[in-house]
Amino acid sequence: MSYDNLTLHTDKYQINMMYAHWKNGTDSHQAVFEAFFRKLPFGNGYAVFAGLERIINYINHLQFDEETIRYLQEQEEEYDPAFLEKLRGFRFTGNISAVPEGTIVFANEPLIRVEGKIFEAQLVETALLNFMNFQTLIATKASRIRQVAPEDTLMEFGTRRAQEADAAIWGARAAYIAGFDATSNMRAGMLFGIPSKGTHAHAWVQDHDTEEEAFRHYAAALPNQVTLLVDTYDTLRYGVPNAIKVAKWMEQQGKRMSAIRLDSGDLAYLSKTARTMFDEAGLPYVKIVASNDLDENIIFNLKAQGARIDSWGVGTQLITAADQPSLGGVYKLVAREKAGAFVPVIKISGNPEKVSTPGIKEAYRLISKQTGKAEADCVTLIGETEVLQGKRLKLYDKLHPYLFKYVDNYDAVQLLKPIFQAGKQVYELPELEQIREYHRQQLTQFWPEYLRKLNPEVYLVDLSAKAWQQKMDLIHDYTSAKLE
Amino acid sequence: MSYDNLTLHTDKYQINMMYAHWKNGTDSHQAVFEAFFRKLPFGNGYAVFAGLERIINYINHLQFDEETIRYLQEQEEEYDPAFLEKLRGFRFTGNISAVPEGTIVFANEPLIRVEGKIFEAQLVETALLNFMNFQTLIATKASRIRQVAPEDTLMEFGTRRAQEADAAIWGARAAYIAGFDATSNMRAGMLFGIPSKGTHAHAWVQDHDTEEEAFRHYAAALPNQVTLLVDTYDTLRYGVPNAIKVAKWMEQQGKRMSAIRLDSGDLAYLSKTARTMFDEAGLPYVKIVASNDLDENIIFNLKAQGARIDSWGVGTQLITAADQPSLGGVYKLVAREKAGAFVPVIKISGNPEKVSTPGIKEAYRLISKQTGKAEADCVTLIGETEVLQGKRLKLYDKLHPYLFKYVDNYDAVQLLKPIFQAGKQVYELPELEQIREYHRQQLTQFWPEYLRKLNPEVYLVDLSAKAWQQKMDLIHDYTSAKLE
Repeated sequence: MSYDNLTLHTDKYQINMMYAHWKNGTDSHQAVFEAFFRKLPFGNGYAVFAGLERIINYINHLQFDEETIRYLQEQEEEYDPAFLEKLRGFRFTGNISAVPEGTIVFANEPLIRVEGKIFEAQLVETALLNFMNFQTLIATKASRIRQVAPEDTLMEFGTRRAQEADAAIWGARAAYIAGFDATSNMRAGMLFGIPSKGTHAHAWVQDHDTEEEAFRHYAAALPNQVTLLVDTYDTLRYGVPNAIKVAKWMEQQGKRMSAIRLDSGDLAYLSKTARTMFDEAGLPYVKIVASNDLDENIIFNLKAQGARIDSWGVGTQLITAADQPSLGGVYKLVAREKAGAFVPVIKISGNPEKVSTPGIKEAYRLISKQTGKAEADCVTLIGETEVLQGKRLKLYDKLHPYLFKYVDNYDAVQLLKPIFQAGKQVYELPELEQIREYHRQQLTQFWPEYLRKLNPEVYLVDLSAKAWQQKMDLIHDYTSAKLE
Repeated sequence: MSYDNLTLHTDKYQINMMYAHWKNGTDSHQAVFEAFFRKLPFGNGYAVFAGLERIINYINHLQFDEETIRYLQEQEEEYDPAFLEKLRGFRFTGNISAVPEGTIVFANEPLIRVEGKIFEAQLVETALLNFMNFQTLIATKASRIRQVAPEDTLMEFGTRRAQEADAAIWGARAAYIAGFDATSNMRAGMLFGIPSKGTHAHAWVQDHDTEEEAFRHYAAALPNQVTLLVDTYDTLRYGVPNAIKVAKWMEQQGKRMSAIRLDSGDLAYLSKTARTMFDEAGLPYVKIVASNDLDENIIFNLKAQGARIDSWGVGTQLITAADQPSLGGVYKLVAREKAGAFVPVIKISGNPEKVSTPGIKEAYRLISKQTGKAEADCVTLIGETEVLQGKRLKLYDKLHPYLFKYVDNYDAVQLLKPIFQAGKQVYELPELEQIREYHRQQLTQFWPEYLRKLNPEVYLVDLSAKAWQQKMDLIHDYTSAKLE
């Protein structure tokens, strides 16, 4: 069972379309797809792009091995053996551009662009979306949490509630990119180099005759990382007093307790009272960690109530993005080869937001030379040069034309970077720490009004006049009598 | 990078507790843990247990390989080299019991019981919960969808929105257990033998000069599975008429079109109108498939409106369990070895539902000999024999004592089956088709009032008098002065 091989991490219709193209002799026709999402998650003002490293690994390892071929053969009698033979030699030979991980991104701008044979570009759709959608979702959720606790220690604690094993580790990585400090997941720690943190469970206390004995045994075993869970029986009556006793006992041996952890009850009240008890006992250095179904709203409210919590363990709500557990990223054909040239294509929909924007596009971030802040993003057709020349632009949201502004004196930063050229990886993967630092710098490019958790200011993503006109022309063509 | 090895698919605190037990010389003490959940998801009346095959594979492959050991060594200077040496020889040597996959289960009854050295039983907590929580959640969601469309074809289409690659395949498997008929995920098809289904995307149509040509090319390539997506430009104006033309053309070659797929717009109206158009064209055999963010509520409502849909492709809402993306399964220590015998242990909480039920337990389903239907589940301490002797029982929910009933003339079915004994797998994994059939039979044991989607009747899960009394005694002990 070749569990490792992700080549069939795809929908059957991709294989069927590959087959139909091959049968029709169109499998080598060039096509261009773009991946984007239509709506920011969680009502947030921005998203944090993630998933690229996973995508690169996937592309580099695409291979229909013998087991895969045999499965396809048995599964579908209609597949011609010559098609399976062609799959045997399959590799990705096209171009991919994408925004780097950690980049602040918005709706309706291309985040990944795939150019290549339709046969290849079709296969990879499902996996690219799966990786981009999940990791971008979790990075964005983590970034919201970081926004409300800018100075505190944030730990990802969600593995037991994650949607299976992959979600646990890639989610931990996405959270780390967006500013979390550590994860409890050891496999994520090992595979990605994320700092791992952990204390003990209620079972540790239950497995001793008394709570104090349990604390003492734990402190003796791991004296340099003693964080004691104090709510097994009664936080203020037993847990905190026992922890104070053990902290004093540790001091006699020249050691310092790190923290206590609160995992139930009223975290505002308990943390303030526990803080006072430790301070009065002469133990101001013992920190307070909180966990228990936390998210950005609960943390925000606890802080508003003056909770004395130094460090937050965030589980279920982060790792499943519980308030919106999917990002609706899509992958749309924007141009196809016809008579040796690319022609733009469109998908019409009764729902205006779902009408695709035809043509091969670039996305630029316009950074004010005066303030160093991002003013807007501009999506153009490829080859448009106005933006790069720094010309004064009138930008407006085409669906809401009353939202507009003029921009000049800017630097235009191209968002999509070359990742694969002719099937060869040309992008050097940054270290995880570099991605995290890059993300931190990205945030400094935005006014805080765009970043706030509730009702953020809408950041403008403009479509160039040419791209807009081409879209209008194609809508007209396809809704006029032409097709009948 | 040993991505395959799931031994570190655990929280750091498990390793820390293992270390502390080893340091304190208690690592070989016996302990018993039970996994259960406290609340049914989605307001449903039951859950469908899944995840066991994954758990068995995980237990059988537990091994701290060299890379893992090296990581732990670098990660934590506090770990004694002799501890790492002990991990090198680690294997699971305890007992595991669990309910079989596909079993109907309820809150507050043991679903997995782990008995063994605390060192081993602690390590496996995180992975067991991760697997059980996700797969049980998705199987339950799928079962809800099956309840509202008992005769229709149901297809799992969620991979692009799944929370990473593992969720896509294990979710597809869980959905299949609970009555789905197929998945679009080819890897799930290959690994688990689930039937895979797929049609084509909008890109197929966009990549042709006309929709009709696209349909004709697809039908020519795969004539035995022609399902045409008809909403690329305009469903009723172009899509359906073009599909009818192609169906007629197929008839001339002695072939039959399978179906059309509707993926946007008003599915009730479009399906009824398309049905009439196909029927009037003499094509009553062409079926209608629907997709587009479906869940059990939308399907239920579409059917109530008389939608003429034969087959449903369900994606995001199923594969992420979008309305409640996690099951809160927990793993609690219920007994520990003391002076050579097991003593029950408790975890107290300010929240009454969170007080654990101490002691090693069994769960029985009481099936009426008269009706063949399940009357209640009964959770007892291990060794209680009244239930097995078929004695008349007065059963009541201890938290809501006004819910009670008498049960006699029943067969008591023990829910937990032996899976591992002394580390050796003693349970023979059923084939996936057998699990699916077993689940179908399980459903027939329950009155429909327990199974309905909205406001189901509450099925009684009773705690035996002895188990209840022991819990009360321990609560008293731990909240009295004993610990101070």
